Amino acid sequence: MLVLGVDPGSRITGFGLLEKSNNDLNIVNYGQVRTPAKIPFYQKIHHIFEAMVKIMGQYHPQEMAIEDMFYAKNVKSSMKLGHARGAVMIAAVECGIDIFEYTPLEIKKSVVGYGRATKEQVRSMVNMILKTDIEFDLDTSDALAAAICHLNWTRFESRIYSNA
Amino acid sequence: MLVLGVDPGSRITGFGLLEKSNNDLNIVNYGQVRTPAKIPFYQKIHHIFEAMVKIMGQYHPQEMAIEDMFYAKNVKSSMKLGHARGAVMIAAVECGIDIFEYTPLEIKKSVVGYGRATKEQVRSMVNMILKTDIEFDLDTSDALAAAICHLNWTRFESRIYSNA
Repeated sequence: MLVLGVDPGSRITGFGLLEKSNNDLNIVNYGQVRTPAKIPFYQKIHHIFEAMVKIMGQYHPQEMAIEDMFYAKNVKSSMKLGHARGAVMIAAVECGIDIFEYTPLEIKKSVVGYGRATKEQVRSMVNMILKTDIEFDLDTSDALAAAICHLNWTRFESRIYSNA
Repeated sequence: MLVLGVDPGSRITGFGLLEKSNNDLNIVNYGQVRTPAKIPFYQKIHHIFEAMVKIMGQYHPQEMAIEDMFYAKNVKSSMKLGHARGAVMIAAVECGIDIFEYTPLEIKKSVVGYGRATKEQVRSMVNMILKTDIEFDLDTSDALAAAICHLNWTRFESRIYSNA
């Protein structure tokens, strides 16, 4: 079972691919999709779509975990994030990957144990859970945390698709 | 020269295809992409993407006109609109269609003559300009207005791609 966790953003989209074998979680790949700064916004969004299709086509994850629509601090950043998140989701549907959405609270609780953890605390726990000392970028560790959260949920129950 | 105007939304996306021949603007097609109500949000976004790719593939417009990112009334509607707008733009880039963005002010000024026009006033002027008494839905007339605005601009100047 291969799960792709994604933390979308119009400038940086973090991703992490985790494989579950027996009770171990193995990192298959991780990284960031960075959009070039000096291209029109719609080309940035297409860049994210294209990069995600490439990653999905290369690794064929069965499922994708992503943060639920949360509401960014203002309408402008929400609008931009919406474009980027849409690009990731369209890519997943095009590639036949099932999408599972979790609130930031669910992800933090699942990884750190409580919902108000900082991104740095999430990253520390991601390192412990994955038994690695890789220095992840914060969007990469957030993406891995979403994947870990999904694998925790699916360990105990068959979760129904969310309908946000 | 065939231009596609689009007014994106996560529930309803209006579109209108206008052809310019000599000094006349002819309506080639128009309508709405309505997303089914009872499917997950990411499927709605993919539905918009798929429907737009189909329309673009059928008519092969050279250029698309769309409202600039404007900032909806709250973070939630901005986020949803961002997904839908992203879907339309990814479809256009995939189909090799050049994208031109105009502010609501530019569109209203171009069609009605002043920037504070209501949607109903925009629709009336769209009817007059296109010499038709079709009762357009408001998202369809907004989409046609974007296309008219683009054709007005390109009549006088070569507009540079915006970099929002």
